[in-house]
Amino acid sequence: MTRLRLDISMSLDGFVAGPNQSEDDPLGEGGEQLHEWILPLAVWRQSHGEEGGEVNASSAVVDESQHNLGATVMGRKMFGGGTGPWAAKDPWNGWWGENPPFHMPVFVLTHHAREPLRMEGGTTFTFVTDGIESALEQARETAGGPDVSLSGGANIAQQYLKAGLIDDIQLHLVPVLLGGGARLFDNPAGPNPGLECTRVVEAPGVTHLRYRVVR
Amino acid sequence: MTRLRLDISMSLDGFVAGPNQSEDDPLGEGGEQLHEWILPLAVWRQSHGEEGGEVNASSAVVDESQHNLGATVMGRKMFGGGTGPWAAKDPWNGWWGENPPFHMPVFVLTHHAREPLRMEGGTTFTFVTDGIESALEQARETAGGPDVSLSGGANIAQQYLKAGLIDDIQLHLVPVLLGGGARLFDNPAGPNPGLECTRVVEAPGVTHLRYRVVR
Repeated sequence: MTRLRLDISMSLDGFVAGPNQSEDDPLGEGGEQLHEWILPLAVWRQSHGEEGGEVNASSAVVDESQHNLGATVMGRKMFGGGTGPWAAKDPWNGWWGENPPFHMPVFVLTHHAREPLRMEGGTTFTFVTDGIESALEQARETAGGPDVSLSGGANIAQQYLKAGLIDDIQLHLVPVLLGGGARLFDNPAGPNPGLECTRVVEAPGVTHLRYRVVR
Repeated sequence: MTRLRLDISMSLDGFVAGPNQSEDDPLGEGGEQLHEWILPLAVWRQSHGEEGGEVNASSAVVDESQHNLGATVMGRKMFGGGTGPWAAKDPWNGWWGENPPFHMPVFVLTHHAREPLRMEGGTTFTFVTDGIESALEQARETAGGPDVSLSGGANIAQQYLKAGLIDDIQLHLVPVLLGGGARLFDNPAGPNPGLECTRVVEAPGVTHLRYRVVR
């Protein structure tokens, strides 16, 4: 069975984005610190079409997180482009340029219908307006066997957690305190999943913690 | 210089005690799960006067956390005994019986003055009414060289964090979601410390994360 894998960077005080998030600043104040560990890595740069970069203990973790994936689900804020209906002219096609780093079908949860968007490099954005279960179902069907990645942001991750639909959680725990913002675990008030830590990797500027949801 | 070391178990969603804490239930609902990893350990049982027990990857961490310590600071709730003035008769002497597991001077932060309390096995409780800096100063003076341990609970740990007085943080991260309770990192709104992860130990039912505060 295809597994739904949440893979997300979190501050030591539990935030996946800093305070005062906005359309122009989806990471919030200080939120860029959550991703500093990944940016220098060769494996990351390659998936973004860049050469060079470092290899360290995080490299294998990132490499693995990109394997055996057939589709990605993300929230509308992560895709970007404002809260209103999609502009007919000059439409927003995501933060990532013409060749996004996903290279697979991506299902974007939104309240506003839009035609699918085919980008270079194998990424297609499909806009899903009928809820998280539908998005997961479509992603699973499209993936056809490999796992589905849940990319965030916090709100969508919380919704999937509350619905008990996540199978694996990989937290990239970053030793900063953001003091506010979007918490990943914010009083889930849903079924409290049993969690089993299946791997810990210590790396420069981050600790990778992998958990399996036990049902 | 004597260092102030915070050593505390925390749930994956950031709580050091569960919801609905009370005088009779200081760990809150589900909070006992935070400590299940330590109870079977031989090193823990020995410090509580019991024999037998397990040895696993946590043993060395617990053993180390008890070394090079000259004094302990704790909050009034952790000591227990109600919020009112100390009863003249039948006084509350802590949760731990006649021979508490500290075996060193313990400074209890409280609003209610009380004579020091000398227990068996080297533990003395001194009640400090003039604030966290005074408690730390007294503990440092008494320790005389070894470090000072900050035992919690959450409220006292937050106060020392906000005041920028903690030098080392060891989190015992437990893979449970408590969904509510007392957060260790709850919008500190103080000086945001730089943190450097100095060690990670994976062990049964817990991940030990050690951080140094960088000033």
